[in-house]
Amino acid sequence: MTEQKRFIAVIGGSQASKEEVKLAEKVGRELAKQGATLVCGGLGGIMEAACRGAQSEGGVTIGILPGGSRQTANPYVQIPIVTNLGEARNVVVVKSAEAVIAIGGGYGTLSEIGHALRSGIPVVGLNTWSLSRNGQLDGSIIPAPNPIEAVDIALSLVTRANQA
Amino acid sequence: MTEQKRFIAVIGGSQASKEEVKLAEKVGRELAKQGATLVCGGLGGIMEAACRGAQSEGGVTIGILPGGSRQTANPYVQIPIVTNLGEARNVVVVKSAEAVIAIGGGYGTLSEIGHALRSGIPVVGLNTWSLSRNGQLDGSIIPAPNPIEAVDIALSLVTRANQA
Amino acid sequence: MTEQKRFIAVIGGSQASKEEVKLAEKVGRELAKQGATLVCGGLGGIMEAACRGAQSEGGVTIGILPGGSRQTANPYVQIPIVTNLGEARNVVVVKSAEAVIAIGGGYGTLSEIGHALRSGIPVVGLNTWSLSRNGQLDGSIIPAPNPIEAVDIALSLVTRANQA
Amino acid sequence: MTEQKRFIAVIGGSQASKEEVKLAEKVGRELAKQGATLVCGGLGGIMEAACRGAQSEGGVTIGILPGGSRQTANPYVQIPIVTNLGEARNVVVVKSAEAVIAIGGGYGTLSEIGHALRSGIPVVGLNTWSLSRNGQLDGSIIPAPNPIEAVDIALSLVTRANQA
Repeated sequence: MTEQKRFIAVIGGSQASKEEVKLAEKVGRELAKQGATLVCGGLGGIMEAACRGAQSEGGVTIGILPGGSRQTANPYVQIPIVTNLGEARNVVVVKSAEAVIAIGGGYGTLSEIGHALRSGIPVVGLNTWSLSRNGQLDGSIIPAPNPIEAVDIALSLVTRANQA
Repeated sequence: MTEQKRFIAVIGGSQASKEEVKLAEKVGRELAKQGATLVCGGLGGIMEAACRGAQSEGGVTIGILPGGSRQTANPYVQIPIVTNLGEARNVVVVKSAEAVIAIGGGYGTLSEIGHALRSGIPVVGLNTWSLSRNGQLDGSIIPAPNPIEAVDIALSLVTRANQA
Repeated sequence: MTEQKRFIAVIGGSQASKEEVKLAEKVGRELAKQGATLVCGGLGGIMEAACRGAQSEGGVTIGILPGGSRQTANPYVQIPIVTNLGEARNVVVVKSAEAVIAIGGGYGTLSEIGHALRSGIPVVGLNTWSLSRNGQLDGSIIPAPNPIEAVDIALSLVTRANQA
Repeated sequence: MTEQKRFIAVIGGSQASKEEVKLAEKVGRELAKQGATLVCGGLGGIMEAACRGAQSEGGVTIGILPGGSRQTANPYVQIPIVTNLGEARNVVVVKSAEAVIAIGGGYGTLSEIGHALRSGIPVVGLNTWSLSRNGQLDGSIIPAPNPIEAVDIALSLVTRANQA
């Protein structure tokens, strides 16, 4: 392959607000426009919206499923990975990406943020968790003002990491 | 068995400050005194200190190891579980417990907190992460003022859950 | 998507004989010609040969890696899935496929055959294990006389399963 | 601890014949008599029989569960490890043992035999699979004539490995 694709994960809950769903769809669309492959957990909510956005722009979508059947993937997943690992598949979602965009999210998303940061994979956030320890804010989640910039930041961080 | 043992996980980094190591050792000791079985990730730092404390009071210690060899367990692990699953073993640590005590901790600990809360397993914190979303504090991590109370809170939460 | 892709796993050792490597390459090529997506463990030997064959015919190749880095994928893997799960990734390889073609293979391959048969995923064999219990041959691994027929059998079994 | 416990896994189906259940119970009893800790998959059939045997002689029993709840353990499991990893927990069962005794067994057991042999963990067999490749028998599964000798062989192989 002459040009290596970028793999970017979009993480967020299978239940999401309307606003977050819109953010996710825009992130998916922009990732596809910029030629990145979308990695996600393959289910509904944020994951489905991101896949729908990516597919509408001709992007490639990978869904790393917690259950044991490919039928559980949302209809916009082109490449279902069937793990049957339950929540342990969260590790596979983030490790299969070069950067992660977190949108909204509950405790499953929090676990993915932890796994990503633990592995040195950059995390860009839209309306997501903020972290502090002993009263001090931890700045590891890079906040983005909107979906387009979230994608720009994520892709620039991958490029920088690859040049280092 | 006439009486069911309680399984309580102690989570925290393999690198830890002196103060956190002392907290962990006291937590381990108190868990053993109250007849609980200690579950942890089996490595050094917080995990080793908690096991050392538990063993000093005759408690049972389980270490769920990320690597492929039982030789990687700290010397106070009596029951090494060898997973070779890397960070995905974090899921097994928290799911094997009825409550979790988080001490200090880095991003691996954060992932475990996420997995625990996602599974409805209560998390008691000593000098650990605090979480917020959209400027609002998330109160799911129950702060404890000291190791003894951390153990008391954890055990009372298990009892309450089992009576429900 | 108007037409659903078939996902077929090719399993076999990272060390393989010249003859087995040729078989794997032909299997990969034929899978691509018939429009199937190749799933494998992403490393060398049989896995690399199958990916090389598939890519030479424009096929899509997925490598589900045991380690923690995408750099460990063979150069013909287009979609690296980074699990860091060690041998537990074998489960993900077979579950992500609708049928499995086993070529040669050692004990890792044997574990994958077991996981596939356990999950009701058909296994076609080329020069691979044969199984018996209490002196009776177990016929679950369907022997194929050559790579082309291995692919034909695998694809026909998926079609039959989907029509049932 | 002055003396290191031996960890021996007993693997076999959750459905088993009466004869195999008797074998498993005797293996469990003998393991406990010889001071070994029993590791198993924690469910019914062979696993439950082995745990029942071990507990009747005061042995320690560990059940590494595929599901997400400790309630799924058989009543003779003293230490339930809750993985929610599905069949991937098979890897954890064998890796947590220093030797494996396979009794009867279906395809899940076959996968465990493959994982054990892949990791260099000796496998002793009672009425279990036999393997061949290209018409040649693979002698890696060591057949035992009865439960007592199965335990003797398993423990002697661990001792030998530790002295090497």
